[in-house]
Amino acid sequence: MAVELKLPVAAVTIATAALALLTGTSALPGAPAGQTEQFDYQTRYFQQKVDHFGFAEVATFNQRYLIADRYWNHNGGPILFYTGNEGDITWFCNNTGFMWDVSKELEAMLVFAEHRYYGESMPFGEKSFGNLTNLNYFTSEQAMADFAVLIRSLKQTIPGAKTSPVIAIGGSYGGMLAAWFRMKYPNIVVGALAASAPIWLFENLTACGDFYAVVTNDFLKSGQGCADSIRNSWDAINNLSSTAEGLTFLSHAFHLCSPLQASDVASFKSWLSDTWVNLAMVDYPYEADFLQPLPAWPIKAVCTFLKDPSLPAESLLKNIFQAVNVYFNYTGNAECLNISQTATSNLDDQGWYYQTCTEMVMPTCSDGVKDMFEPVPWDFQLFSDNCKKEWGIRPRPDWITTVYGGKNINSHSNIIFSNGGLDPWASGGVTKSISDTLIAIIIPEGAHHLDLRSRNDKDPISVQKARALEVEYIKKWIQEAKNEPMPF
Amino acid sequence: MAVELKLPVAAVTIATAALALLTGTSALPGAPAGQTEQFDYQTRYFQQKVDHFGFAEVATFNQRYLIADRYWNHNGGPILFYTGNEGDITWFCNNTGFMWDVSKELEAMLVFAEHRYYGESMPFGEKSFGNLTNLNYFTSEQAMADFAVLIRSLKQTIPGAKTSPVIAIGGSYGGMLAAWFRMKYPNIVVGALAASAPIWLFENLTACGDFYAVVTNDFLKSGQGCADSIRNSWDAINNLSSTAEGLTFLSHAFHLCSPLQASDVASFKSWLSDTWVNLAMVDYPYEADFLQPLPAWPIKAVCTFLKDPSLPAESLLKNIFQAVNVYFNYTGNAECLNISQTATSNLDDQGWYYQTCTEMVMPTCSDGVKDMFEPVPWDFQLFSDNCKKEWGIRPRPDWITTVYGGKNINSHSNIIFSNGGLDPWASGGVTKSISDTLIAIIIPEGAHHLDLRSRNDKDPISVQKARALEVEYIKKWIQEAKNEPMPF
Repeated sequence: MAVELKLPVAAVTIATAALALLTGTSALPGAPAGQTEQFDYQTRYFQQKVDHFGFAEVATFNQRYLIADRYWNHNGGPILFYTGNEGDITWFCNNTGFMWDVSKELEAMLVFAEHRYYGESMPFGEKSFGNLTNLNYFTSEQAMADFAVLIRSLKQTIPGAKTSPVIAIGGSYGGMLAAWFRMKYPNIVVGALAASAPIWLFENLTACGDFYAVVTNDFLKSGQGCADSIRNSWDAINNLSSTAEGLTFLSHAFHLCSPLQASDVASFKSWLSDTWVNLAMVDYPYEADFLQPLPAWPIKAVCTFLKDPSLPAESLLKNIFQAVNVYFNYTGNAECLNISQTATSNLDDQGWYYQTCTEMVMPTCSDGVKDMFEPVPWDFQLFSDNCKKEWGIRPRPDWITTVYGGKNINSHSNIIFSNGGLDPWASGGVTKSISDTLIAIIIPEGAHHLDLRSRNDKDPISVQKARALEVEYIKKWIQEAKNEPMPF
Repeated sequence: MAVELKLPVAAVTIATAALALLTGTSALPGAPAGQTEQFDYQTRYFQQKVDHFGFAEVATFNQRYLIADRYWNHNGGPILFYTGNEGDITWFCNNTGFMWDVSKELEAMLVFAEHRYYGESMPFGEKSFGNLTNLNYFTSEQAMADFAVLIRSLKQTIPGAKTSPVIAIGGSYGGMLAAWFRMKYPNIVVGALAASAPIWLFENLTACGDFYAVVTNDFLKSGQGCADSIRNSWDAINNLSSTAEGLTFLSHAFHLCSPLQASDVASFKSWLSDTWVNLAMVDYPYEADFLQPLPAWPIKAVCTFLKDPSLPAESLLKNIFQAVNVYFNYTGNAECLNISQTATSNLDDQGWYYQTCTEMVMPTCSDGVKDMFEPVPWDFQLFSDNCKKEWGIRPRPDWITTVYGGKNINSHSNIIFSNGGLDPWASGGVTKSISDTLIAIIIPEGAHHLDLRSRNDKDPISVQKARALEVEYIKKWIQEAKNEPMPF
């Protein structure tokens, strides 16, 4: 099951914010998928406390985790622990080929732990999203406490694992969790690989326009006239959609499943924006099926249709259709395009929406100058009001930086922050090494956590080098831990 | 107001566990007091979220904090932040003379933050202890989140404080909080002085008998026959209390306010045990009034009455009375002794009892061989059953080591662990340096956090040196922070 999780972004939500929050704009998927592989693991369940941080609620739930020990050295071999993020853990497991690829060399056990409130790991079963009380334990802190308690139990109960060094690995939000987990529980994990983890996309740590600037840059580099064509498309849409005739034109030109209404125009533009963002995230060097089945270097394919930004409105938009059709209809099976859908049909974004309305507030904006999108400022009040409307809660935009340190993280150690040069999420990533043990790796040709994907013949040298460096650091951490074991 | 907080200890609780849990055995006070001084501070209140780790409860409460800036350098001078522990913050403030003594030299602002559920900082006012739901936010994690949010606000709102390096300082449980606060929020505090902080008195990190062995050693060193007299007293009490005649003798010999009943004997022995423990904690080199008004080196004074352990039961116990009378009646004002009281009458141990029944489970035991107490094994089940009976909850004995790292804390930095050689709590302290930046200091002649007390002419050289070293490290941390500011 492919999962796309949503980051509510101001740039496309100002007109129809409530809807946009639901239909999403830019996706924050958890792990990359090529051709989804099926790996050999066991599914297990661990009884977790619903509340690690209070004593009134004594309920427990079954946290799902997957375990594979084919290559594990049963005498204290390392454990690679995937810090599950916003989706079904089997999907992350099957789409994080890197861990499988290196397990033999490292003689490592693999564990993939599901994040509470996703997949099967529902603290209150089907009622987990039923009310605010049941949702109350849905935080990154509780999720990491689950990981800590689970790891401790595994080390205590699996023969030979008592002194096993544990490495946290994750991508995207899972990468943030991996990094934070090492920061908060260095007694539990000796190091972390945080792939494409935008830990600095909070509060004012990153300029709100950077995210869309990266997307734009990908299109700028992928074909002359490409970004400008998209930039010019908004006015063309605005002009055409002001008349019934224009709406009919757009409905036909874009092969829309439902005729476009005036009230749909904001959603229509959001759908286009999301598509450009998604393309930037999955601009992989080979054919892949992550958010959608796509050709190698899909933005280049898209840009072949967008060479002349100076065309009149109707011609320009016909080309825009050809461009998005690459994304939505690479297989040629789509009979029409549905503007309520931008990625896989297995969307499961309810949980992530709750998280953005509580802890995970990532301000973004666009100005149409440094980026190719319509200008929209970051409007926290509007964002908060929509959260209040949808969930009955208001976000706490300064909590993540307080609890996880913001940019003041230099006292921590043993974390690799890997970033893709093409990935918009890298705008909020750690892209410069902070110390000898807080390492930033840039993969210039990489989109969203390309390094966590399975090896591929078409991998650029940069990702091959990145993975080699990652393995080198992981080995170093393991060796250091062997010299100074942390039995628990 | 003097506060004595209770550590439920198996050694004296097996017979009347529920009572002993309330009347306590060994005290874990928060900060030392000599002659209580009155310092010049302002009292302020900060609006805190009741729940930092969930979004359903939106209530807030006023956290009290005290602030003094007489010597503060208004251009980014440091902030010494007392991480308040289990009691009224004004008492800690007035009894932590060290901070006041060094504030001029360091040009430091002093802040003393009250721990939630103590003093005036009640999340639900008078109903804070009313039910488990209201008590649910009473954890060390929430308390430290309060500290983090408060510090961030102070730095944002006090002109000149934006880049002020903050040092956490605390004693006893407050020392544990100072250490853990640096571990969990190194973005907020650049270092911590954790005085007499038994962070390793959890789970199986310390042999359960060590605590009472230290107490015993204090008596062994303070006079020939002293510890043996106490060791022999238990059988003498057991024998005498088996008859009505013997009970009458004991009531008279100990000048008890209420005649001793057979059912009181366990409490009577607990009261004696508590007294020996308390004496070990406050064995200060000068007259002081911490738990009780006492002479200099009170154990030596006590031991002058306990030179012959081979005396027959009645004579031995008459001497034991003389010994405890030093503790309970140094002023000569007590008309009789009350076995329900072992320290100041301002006891406020309800909160700490809750904490021991949730997170703060510190196993202790005695064997009568390595110590002078009656043999009592650690019995977690009994302890837990009593918690269930009293509060309706059961403790989680392995949580503290999971969340705060147990002995695996070597990746942290900038923490001083100071320990008194006479202090039983040092048995669970960090008494050997872990790294260049995790420093243990031993004060051989020190009882419970002597170093946090005001300067005194009778201070032994060891505590003078300890304080000098502490100031040296604090200056180093401040300087390092100045070189690499952490604006928030």
